[in-house]
Amino acid sequence: MDNGLPAGFRLGVAEAAFKKPGRNDLALLLSDRPAAAAGLFTTNKFQAAPVLAGRERLRVSPTARAVLINAGQANACTGEEGMFRCRQSREMTASLLGISPDDILPASTGVIGAQMDMRAWERALPALAGNLGRAGLEDFASAIMTTDAFPKYARRKLCIGNENPVGIAGAAKGAGMICPDMATMLAVVFCDAVMDPGEWRSLLAGAVDASFNRVSVDGDTSTNDTLYGLANGASGVSISGTRTAILGKVLTEVLEELAYMLVKDGEGATKVMHIDVVGAANDADAERAARAVGGSQLVKTAMYGKDANWGRVICALGRSGAAFNPDDVVFVLCGVELFSNGKPAPPHYEDLLTPALAQRDIRMELRLGYGPGKYKLLASDLTHDYVSVNSDYRS
Amino acid sequence: MDNGLPAGFRLGVAEAAFKKPGRNDLALLLSDRPAAAAGLFTTNKFQAAPVLAGRERLRVSPTARAVLINAGQANACTGEEGMFRCRQSREMTASLLGISPDDILPASTGVIGAQMDMRAWERALPALAGNLGRAGLEDFASAIMTTDAFPKYARRKLCIGNENPVGIAGAAKGAGMICPDMATMLAVVFCDAVMDPGEWRSLLAGAVDASFNRVSVDGDTSTNDTLYGLANGASGVSISGTRTAILGKVLTEVLEELAYMLVKDGEGATKVMHIDVVGAANDADAERAARAVGGSQLVKTAMYGKDANWGRVICALGRSGAAFNPDDVVFVLCGVELFSNGKPAPPHYEDLLTPALAQRDIRMELRLGYGPGKYKLLASDLTHDYVSVNSDYRS
Repeated sequence: MDNGLPAGFRLGVAEAAFKKPGRNDLALLLSDRPAAAAGLFTTNKFQAAPVLAGRERLRVSPTARAVLINAGQANACTGEEGMFRCRQSREMTASLLGISPDDILPASTGVIGAQMDMRAWERALPALAGNLGRAGLEDFASAIMTTDAFPKYARRKLCIGNENPVGIAGAAKGAGMICPDMATMLAVVFCDAVMDPGEWRSLLAGAVDASFNRVSVDGDTSTNDTLYGLANGASGVSISGTRTAILGKVLTEVLEELAYMLVKDGEGATKVMHIDVVGAANDADAERAARAVGGSQLVKTAMYGKDANWGRVICALGRSGAAFNPDDVVFVLCGVELFSNGKPAPPHYEDLLTPALAQRDIRMELRLGYGPGKYKLLASDLTHDYVSVNSDYRS
Repeated sequence: MDNGLPAGFRLGVAEAAFKKPGRNDLALLLSDRPAAAAGLFTTNKFQAAPVLAGRERLRVSPTARAVLINAGQANACTGEEGMFRCRQSREMTASLLGISPDDILPASTGVIGAQMDMRAWERALPALAGNLGRAGLEDFASAIMTTDAFPKYARRKLCIGNENPVGIAGAAKGAGMICPDMATMLAVVFCDAVMDPGEWRSLLAGAVDASFNRVSVDGDTSTNDTLYGLANGASGVSISGTRTAILGKVLTEVLEELAYMLVKDGEGATKVMHIDVVGAANDADAERAARAVGGSQLVKTAMYGKDANWGRVICALGRSGAAFNPDDVVFVLCGVELFSNGKPAPPHYEDLLTPALAQRDIRMELRLGYGPGKYKLLASDLTHDYVSVNSDYRS
């Protein structure tokens, strides 16, 4: 049966009511055989219990059978008791599945500081195991949501020569506390190619760097950011040598699609800014410039207001720390050049932008000079709804 | 006649209607004699014409007779034409006052990118000169406002021994695009002490570092940030040697009072967070931690929502880049310890905070460990009104 997933994987979801009842909030990905496994984790100094546990497992062995995710309780800043409960949740699940607890990679998302409700786990796990294989990718993506407005998932098939197609699927969650840095929000990507674990890890790291590491909703990097990638080999197609780059490209596409959805679903967001910096002295300077612009509250609110207030972009660039000559800077908003040679374009140019600024996707091109440095960043706007969602999160 | 100002200074205001009519938007401070003059300016790479002109004047000579400020047009990103108009405004004013244009320190605030309306200058300047000496400190502070909700001014008298009292007065403006860095928003402080220009400058720099450089509304450093300080000696009281520290303390108090008002009047703000970091490895790390917390959109919205969501503070600290051991961290909110030893306090502790979180001033103490590093920062919250003001600024 083709369930639309990469071969040899099953999904399950269940309701544990960690935060409130009425929705699935427990999700399981199970491979029918050991898979090459890699993880990328938050760089925050405070690391949630499942981050510490998942990291430790992958340090010992780059393989796994399952990924287990709960939504509603982050199990972060919970001390040793939190580590113990994380272990318990893996042990209970493992005994139902007949696998080792070590083979389960854990992830949690939700409010920081609350201990996980182990009775909720106990009640829900039999349903989760019973549901295995009946849940689709959308069900899985829905079960890991918190403040997300819609489930985020993507998939591809890759056909090389006469071999079986290789399947890749991914799901992600995240709408707030998003500014991943060398890691990402909660996301899982799984693939049925035969891969060496080391190569799989570096492929994944490259794809994450080109996708999740280039989005910003609110500049905060959470305590729980985790991306797990499993490659179980069930397609029988070996990926190595020159084929690796081909798979890497498709993998990057899947992650880019998910990363775009994170920004589109940024808490309260109405816009996705595509910030494209070129001509910087080096890539690090281009990144500084892009992050200053994409992170500026004043730029974000101007975009929300459909206001071509380019002075705020220039101001953010000016404080970014990037090296450049102000007279070399060119700023193009949705195809209209608004600033160059140290001077603004004629005022009526802004009127040309009215239709473009009404769209969801806003393209910004910033040329800093004539260097080789470049960087792209996706960022959301800052809206009344963002404030509503975040001033009222826990009530 | 005692006008409540430091001796030998007069103020004038007038309406030029740079942005819209119905309010004074032109302000002049004139000393009856040459004053020791110092300026601290924005670190933004894009520097407004008056910043470039004021900086150049003070490079040539650390003295001045006047400060001239217009509100509504920032004269930033305006190229050579902007420099020319800045010069014109100083020349027109100087000929009315019978002084040299070089003796006038200029400052502008308002929308970036618009050229100054020179006919508005021409029409308003005679009224400004005619009004000289009739305006008080509050009138002056009101005339330099843009999105400010209230005028910001402060004054002190310092009596040393049997000598004449020394007067110090200051005014500031700023509500958005505020995260001064080695400089400040538009502010003027003037004093009638007899001071060596070099000592006056370093006194001022120290006082700014302890006040304006420690506030953050939205993390943006504007193209126009300027603080001018004039000491004209009209009291006849010489300040040097051990007296310098005494004057420095009072000067710092005046600037702290103004800096607090900037945060209190942060666009849409309902809260002033007093973020006090101690026990860091060094002061730079303490500053990183304070700025990460004070700049976090999630912390700012939680405070607006009167929500003791300490997990967001801990999360911001964790990504700040400051070095510390997570288990050493202690977080105290309004006197209640919410996090220590890697674990949260009992949940009912948060209920104790309900009355405190309803207040305007919110005290946060973060201990990172046992090092000597410390830093204090004032920061505002992030509210629906902030978004309203900034998504609708130019309309």
